Amino acid sequence: MGKFARYIHQELGLSESEEPKDLADTDRYGMFKAGPVLSVSHGMGMPSMSIMLNELLKLLYHARCSNVVMFRMGTSGGLGLEPGTVVISKAAVDACFRPRYTQIVLGQEISRPTELDQGLVDELLHVAAQEEGLTAVAGNTMCANGFYEEQGRLDGAFCDYTEQDKLQYLQKGRDAGVRNLEMESLCFAALCKKAGVKAGVVCVTLVDRLRGDQVTTPHDTLKEWELRPQKLLAKFISSRLGIK
Amino acid sequence: MGKFARYIHQELGLSESEEPKDLADTDRYGMFKAGPVLSVSHGMGMPSMSIMLNELLKLLYHARCSNVVMFRMGTSGGLGLEPGTVVISKAAVDACFRPRYTQIVLGQEISRPTELDQGLVDELLHVAAQEEGLTAVAGNTMCANGFYEEQGRLDGAFCDYTEQDKLQYLQKGRDAGVRNLEMESLCFAALCKKAGVKAGVVCVTLVDRLRGDQVTTPHDTLKEWELRPQKLLAKFISSRLGIK
Repeated sequence: MGKFARYIHQELGLSESEEPKDLADTDRYGMFKAGPVLSVSHGMGMPSMSIMLNELLKLLYHARCSNVVMFRMGTSGGLGLEPGTVVISKAAVDACFRPRYTQIVLGQEISRPTELDQGLVDELLHVAAQEEGLTAVAGNTMCANGFYEEQGRLDGAFCDYTEQDKLQYLQKGRDAGVRNLEMESLCFAALCKKAGVKAGVVCVTLVDRLRGDQVTTPHDTLKEWELRPQKLLAKFISSRLGIK
Repeated sequence: MGKFARYIHQELGLSESEEPKDLADTDRYGMFKAGPVLSVSHGMGMPSMSIMLNELLKLLYHARCSNVVMFRMGTSGGLGLEPGTVVISKAAVDACFRPRYTQIVLGQEISRPTELDQGLVDELLHVAAQEEGLTAVAGNTMCANGFYEEQGRLDGAFCDYTEQDKLQYLQKGRDAGVRNLEMESLCFAALCKKAGVKAGVVCVTLVDRLRGDQVTTPHDTLKEWELRPQKLLAKFISSRLGIK
């Protein structure tokens, strides 16, 4: 997050005296402010995202922020896409491909919708189209509660299914519009929607899960891919703020 | 984890040349080795715990480790206990108080049992009884997928229930044997059990949730409480290794 904040600081042409610092009080999350852009880490998985979002939403409320747009950005596994492709999420879906975030509250199951703002999707696609060397697509993002079994990987500590079972499942996801898999978007989409905050999810794919589980791309290439969502969002933010 | 590793290093009387270093390759987790004791951070929530555990179990397998005992230690909310009490978990239970970890694997719900090793519970209670100023109890630990709504807190960004609803739910938990609430034990108990690794969960309670949600205890007292699971486990490890 610190790197992204410094990058945004530079892209927005902010003064040296405003150099972003880590504002978080604990080592659980990091939080940096560069001009009007707050960058916060969320840890791995929805419960970790949920804690951060609850606290961030309270913070924004007390700080009387308005017209807030939130983004989750990061890496993901792709489905039928060339690795390095950026996916702009139309909706986050659960591991059964349903656009809903299910929580147990006071022992009762509640479900909240997880469709994302379509205007934002179009705007991001438009910005992406102007970026040389960047391929971006819109699609659904499957959000799982684990990295291994829950995403049908064969290389975890446990695997009680075959490669064929896995491929059948992933193909079913692809057919349902899923283009990438990660672990935070469902909670992010649902809680932003409930809070009335516009939200977008932008993740680069590091591997095509229909072709394998292991990331074999060289380290330097991966590092370049990981910057792609950052670059796209920096352009989006600059454009929104009217900065060339 | 670094602090705990250095504490264990000192308690086990290990030589200075063995001073524990962070062995983790990324900033996602920390991993320290002090003699035969590996200390690893797991982040917040079950998905984060699940990634770490999958990778740790593979590591232990390839390193041919045997007779491994794993512990999750940390902080928690208490139910009807004096804050500062240490809870040694008999079982991890879900937010409906059932001893099972439910995962969606290839679109299918699977549930795994989450009872913990009772011999270990008794052994830990025995060690705790010899520690002056330490109150430890055995009980069930409820594991939730969030900190706010999922644990019936009133002070999150959202709250669609009353204080009475919350207290009714927590009392139902207390009646079902729940003595504390946290966010990782269910996954930890289930995956260790499936891997055939003996596992224990030791958490200190920072607040009695039947009396409130906010932790109002002074910082220094909290710091002392947070050390209690570490002290208990250090004594347990020393005793197992025959070190006075």
